[in-house]
Amino acid sequence: MINFETTPESYKHWKLAVDGAVATLTMDVQEDETLADGYKLKLNSYDLGVDIELADAVQRLRFEHPEVQVVVVTSLKPRIFCAGANIYMLGTSSHAFKVNFCKFTNETRCAIEDASANSGQRYVAALNGTASGGGYELAIACDEIYLVDDGNSAVSLPEVPLLGVLPGTGGLTRLVDKRKIRRDRADVFSTLAEGLKGKRAKEWGLVDGYFPTSKFQEAVAAHVESLVKTDGAKAAAKGIKLNPLQVEATAAGREYKYVSVKLNREKRYADLTVRAPQGVQPSTVAEIEQLGDAYWPLQAYRELDDALLHLRMNELEIGLVCLRTEGDLEDVLAVDRTLLANRDHWLVRETILYMARVLRRLDLTAKSFFAFIEPGSCFAGNLLELALSADRTYMLNDPDAKVEVATSEFNAGALPMSNGLTRLQSRFLVAPEQADEVLKHEGALDAEAAEAAGLVTFAPDDLDWEDKIRVDIEERTSLSPDALTGMEASLRFAGPETMDTKIYGRLTAWQNWIFQRPNAVGPEGALTNYGKPTQAQFDYKRT
Amino acid sequence: MINFETTPESYKHWKLAVDGAVATLTMDVQEDETLADGYKLKLNSYDLGVDIELADAVQRLRFEHPEVQVVVVTSLKPRIFCAGANIYMLGTSSHAFKVNFCKFTNETRCAIEDASANSGQRYVAALNGTASGGGYELAIACDEIYLVDDGNSAVSLPEVPLLGVLPGTGGLTRLVDKRKIRRDRADVFSTLAEGLKGKRAKEWGLVDGYFPTSKFQEAVAAHVESLVKTDGAKAAAKGIKLNPLQVEATAAGREYKYVSVKLNREKRYADLTVRAPQGVQPSTVAEIEQLGDAYWPLQAYRELDDALLHLRMNELEIGLVCLRTEGDLEDVLAVDRTLLANRDHWLVRETILYMARVLRRLDLTAKSFFAFIEPGSCFAGNLLELALSADRTYMLNDPDAKVEVATSEFNAGALPMSNGLTRLQSRFLVAPEQADEVLKHEGALDAEAAEAAGLVTFAPDDLDWEDKIRVDIEERTSLSPDALTGMEASLRFAGPETMDTKIYGRLTAWQNWIFQRPNAVGPEGALTNYGKPTQAQFDYKRT
Repeated sequence: MINFETTPESYKHWKLAVDGAVATLTMDVQEDETLADGYKLKLNSYDLGVDIELADAVQRLRFEHPEVQVVVVTSLKPRIFCAGANIYMLGTSSHAFKVNFCKFTNETRCAIEDASANSGQRYVAALNGTASGGGYELAIACDEIYLVDDGNSAVSLPEVPLLGVLPGTGGLTRLVDKRKIRRDRADVFSTLAEGLKGKRAKEWGLVDGYFPTSKFQEAVAAHVESLVKTDGAKAAAKGIKLNPLQVEATAAGREYKYVSVKLNREKRYADLTVRAPQGVQPSTVAEIEQLGDAYWPLQAYRELDDALLHLRMNELEIGLVCLRTEGDLEDVLAVDRTLLANRDHWLVRETILYMARVLRRLDLTAKSFFAFIEPGSCFAGNLLELALSADRTYMLNDPDAKVEVATSEFNAGALPMSNGLTRLQSRFLVAPEQADEVLKHEGALDAEAAEAAGLVTFAPDDLDWEDKIRVDIEERTSLSPDALTGMEASLRFAGPETMDTKIYGRLTAWQNWIFQRPNAVGPEGALTNYGKPTQAQFDYKRT
Repeated sequence: MINFETTPESYKHWKLAVDGAVATLTMDVQEDETLADGYKLKLNSYDLGVDIELADAVQRLRFEHPEVQVVVVTSLKPRIFCAGANIYMLGTSSHAFKVNFCKFTNETRCAIEDASANSGQRYVAALNGTASGGGYELAIACDEIYLVDDGNSAVSLPEVPLLGVLPGTGGLTRLVDKRKIRRDRADVFSTLAEGLKGKRAKEWGLVDGYFPTSKFQEAVAAHVESLVKTDGAKAAAKGIKLNPLQVEATAAGREYKYVSVKLNREKRYADLTVRAPQGVQPSTVAEIEQLGDAYWPLQAYRELDDALLHLRMNELEIGLVCLRTEGDLEDVLAVDRTLLANRDHWLVRETILYMARVLRRLDLTAKSFFAFIEPGSCFAGNLLELALSADRTYMLNDPDAKVEVATSEFNAGALPMSNGLTRLQSRFLVAPEQADEVLKHEGALDAEAAEAAGLVTFAPDDLDWEDKIRVDIEERTSLSPDALTGMEASLRFAGPETMDTKIYGRLTAWQNWIFQRPNAVGPEGALTNYGKPTQAQFDYKRT
């Protein structure tokens, strides 16, 4: 059972230090503090436990340290920045674990880029030693990369030549799409086990600069200082504390304050319910800051995030998640109005950006999602995105009951998908004006209006409702989980592609393919044979 | 040994009839005329042999029947249009064959869309019976789809619910990206084994119309007639004949007139050489028409296309193709000038479009490509694209020998990649002006100029040349072929994505993944168990 919650006080592998506008995130992986048995985290190599701490630090920097403008990522180990994902951990992991591990680490790196793009927190990778594989992929997720020039330290992606797999955390995509390295040079670099050192790495665009050992820290510090000056100080802001989530975890599910997960293990589906805020909600930024992480949107989405990660990683056989909401439409819409009215405030901005990240985590979860809109539900505004994220949406058509959905300005761009579109735009690619019409609709929509507007897949009446749901859940959970994963990954992201969708779609799919090939994971495969005296034996047939 | 050449006279499974501006391509698959043993092609299901004929027909319609404006695709079988790829064929095929089969059928469907977009040949699918799986995917590659309304015939994608795999020929992508079906409806449709019939299929956008059996042929004919009238007659054009290629095939390779393939089987690489035209070349369209398929660009690229298909399908262990050219730069540039000066003429236009398709076939080939630029080579204009397609380019830097490359207007847009960019644009994403500078360069570039312009990866001198090449070939062919395939698929297509790149990158990668999963191909997998009394047993863990 993997726990995704942590705090800086309990980090084992990272040190987070904040000094005014500059934070330093230092990697110092403890060899023996592994998440599972059977491997040691040598040379700052990482397992999921290390990355959970990194993800936590990136998140806390935004909420707890909004004054930070530059985050320096470096290592405490001499001559090594980071050796990437631990190979023995990968070699002993199940296919499903490898895939989920890569997805989470990808999300962490995308969160770094999101902080840089939207929160004014630039990331500088200060490579005081070699960055190989996932180590270089962490660096390339940062805005800038500086490498020590000690005659030995290099950047490298040795996965293809040494391990017979791909760099699994977006490295190939970021080489050619972010740093726009020439493709032939990217080809050479990605097949060169020893990588490239300072001068050549700079010439090819793999790093932004290199400094001799004696001047490295000083030169990086001076550059960071200049970045802070260029950007100008942020408006004085005092962070809020992200307290541990309170969750009651049982065999039957997980109960948070605003989120419930009920597991129907035998039938391989879960009910996930998000509850609307209750009682008086804040309307000013002062009140929001006062509430801190107890403010509904932040707390509810943190709980949702945790629930999704839990389902992904700890409940592999749950193939379908039934999304439900409980509460009053108006209470949700009121929150949306408050957030949008105050979106220039740093905490509100961070909250909205975080809600968007959680919903993207849902889009990228390899489980089916059905949304059920029933009496007492509140799929409005930000929570309507849950229904729009779902693979299908069922809405009860019962004139005797109040069953409604509603849009808000939140559905018009605050919560973009990985492809850069809103979920309404993705839904109505065939007739973009339909998205605008839905947004202009005054008041809530009942089942017939919602169906006419194209917001729901099925709107059965109360005679059919229960049977329809039961049969459709049974059918869905009977299908091949692999075919569903590939199908959903294809249908959820129509329209434009971005670097993120390329990483999650194209690159991840290839990596998943390779992760099952005998040439990587068979008894004579490269991943299996890594570090052994035997050499990998390949079947050279090209597919 | 699979042969990709055929002619309408020897088709076994299709009938091609041309009547003025309308061609009819009728599917009538012969059950026993299979490419391999162990299956029967019932219900107009297809194997690679059927698709080779289709690809040939699509190609001939452009060159031999330029007067055709509408191509009607239909079936001779009662109540069945096409049941898609034969499941027993898939079930008994190797992984590599399945992957290569899907790639070829995808290229054929993209060629249909290319004919429609660029050659004024619209495709109308006249579904006189059920179109399921690859049958519907063939329909959705057409511009319009009409379905008979006989109370029984449906369109469907039963791969996920029945076979535990994906529709492998672009179906999912075209559902949401071409026909822009709402994603929740695409989800329902793609999990509904029995599919949808006329009325609902039309409502959901899966077909463009439906007619009762008694009026089906008449209604389709009337609609086709109206399309012809709307488009207006094409300029009178008389097609040219595509004669069989002359090739000398031996154990050591293949010798065509302008293309040589030399197999170094033990070392797992091939030398592929394209020779420039020799002697006086035509300069007017009359002369070009007179030469027909013997005109250098058409013949050389037909030979190159055949060589690539041969290497893909019949030489699986060849992991690296060394691209070479022989001849005079100026002879190639002269052809480019003639083609561009006459590009408004249908035959010249078709020739250029075909050259672009062949180069895209190269981009999509799962083998490494190294280009070698040596004395006597002629990487100029259209042939420079070979060097730009290569994963790496080596150019001899020898002041005593004439070793040069040259650009032409052909490198500025006539031969787009699947991502919509030119190969120069894809190469210089980091500094788009570099592509323009290269194009503006007067005259040929020697090794130093080419290196400075960013056109070559390595430019060793004559002392290093042979060793460098030998070592790099050895290194490349020693790496995991699977990791290389995934790496090349990621690095070759930086920048924008299109429906084509989504099909070849995202969808294909997922399908390849699923094609190895025990849930599909294991002893209890759905593909293995299809048609047997036993039922598939899934491992329900989601990855």
